[in-house]
Amino acid sequence: MRQRVSVITLGVSDLARARRFYEAIGWKTGAQPDDDVIFFQTGDMVLALWDRAKLAEDSCVEDTSGWGGVTLALNVGSRREVDAATEEARAAGAKVGRKPAETFWGGYSSLIIDPEGHPWEIAHNPHWTLTPDGGVRLA
Amino acid sequence: MRQRVSVITLGVSDLARARRFYEAIGWKTGAQPDDDVIFFQTGDMVLALWDRAKLAEDSCVEDTSGWGGVTLALNVGSRREVDAATEEARAAGAKVGRKPAETFWGGYSSLIIDPEGHPWEIAHNPHWTLTPDGGVRLA
Repeated sequence: MRQRVSVITLGVSDLARARRFYEAIGWKTGAQPDDDVIFFQTGDMVLALWDRAKLAEDSCVEDTSGWGGVTLALNVGSRREVDAATEEARAAGAKVGRKPAETFWGGYSSLIIDPEGHPWEIAHNPHWTLTPDGGVRLA
Repeated sequence: MRQRVSVITLGVSDLARARRFYEAIGWKTGAQPDDDVIFFQTGDMVLALWDRAKLAEDSCVEDTSGWGGVTLALNVGSRREVDAATEEARAAGAKVGRKPAETFWGGYSSLIIDPEGHPWEIAHNPHWTLTPDGGVRLA
């Protein structure tokens, strides 16, 4: 199997609210207003929003209705960008679980939770390389 | 916030087993044998394996211990590659939730579940473009 992730689908209970959140943080989608799946091109991959019950069925799993062991991260180029992105997410409706602060692994990060309960770490990791268009390279 | 995902962290209860699975499907990591986080470079981003209880704490969420609304996908270039990757995952220890078959959205996919319960769709989507190095572009 190729060492890749092509799509991350986030199950949502309120698609319009979830879409509004990701658009409010500046993301662009080509989806029509009444589409039932919203795709965002995120670098070389895609992040999708879809009805959570349908996603559970399609994924052959039972939905235990909370968090299930997956956390996303957005890495940025500086501590200041962590602060700014965290504030942008908060203003768009995210809950701030952890305010921006130094981390045990030598970086600086915050933790925000989108309106559907999906957590994102917003991180500056001085050990990794960020490419000009936002890609991440392990040291 | 930049329209990107930098890291997907999968929480795992048995790190050695999870690492063995991803290595068995052909993925390479630079992690040392006793590292407690395993990073895989996946295109322009990183997939990480980490202790699920620690990830829950770090993510400011309670772990409801099952699936929590996130499904990953690997897109490949043909139906035959879906069949082959599904068999490779099964042989490495994944459960096959859905055998490869035509989908309601006009593609062809299977659904496998890794040893830690994280579902992956393995898909051929004729409506999207696959770049030579495995990236995905919306139509």
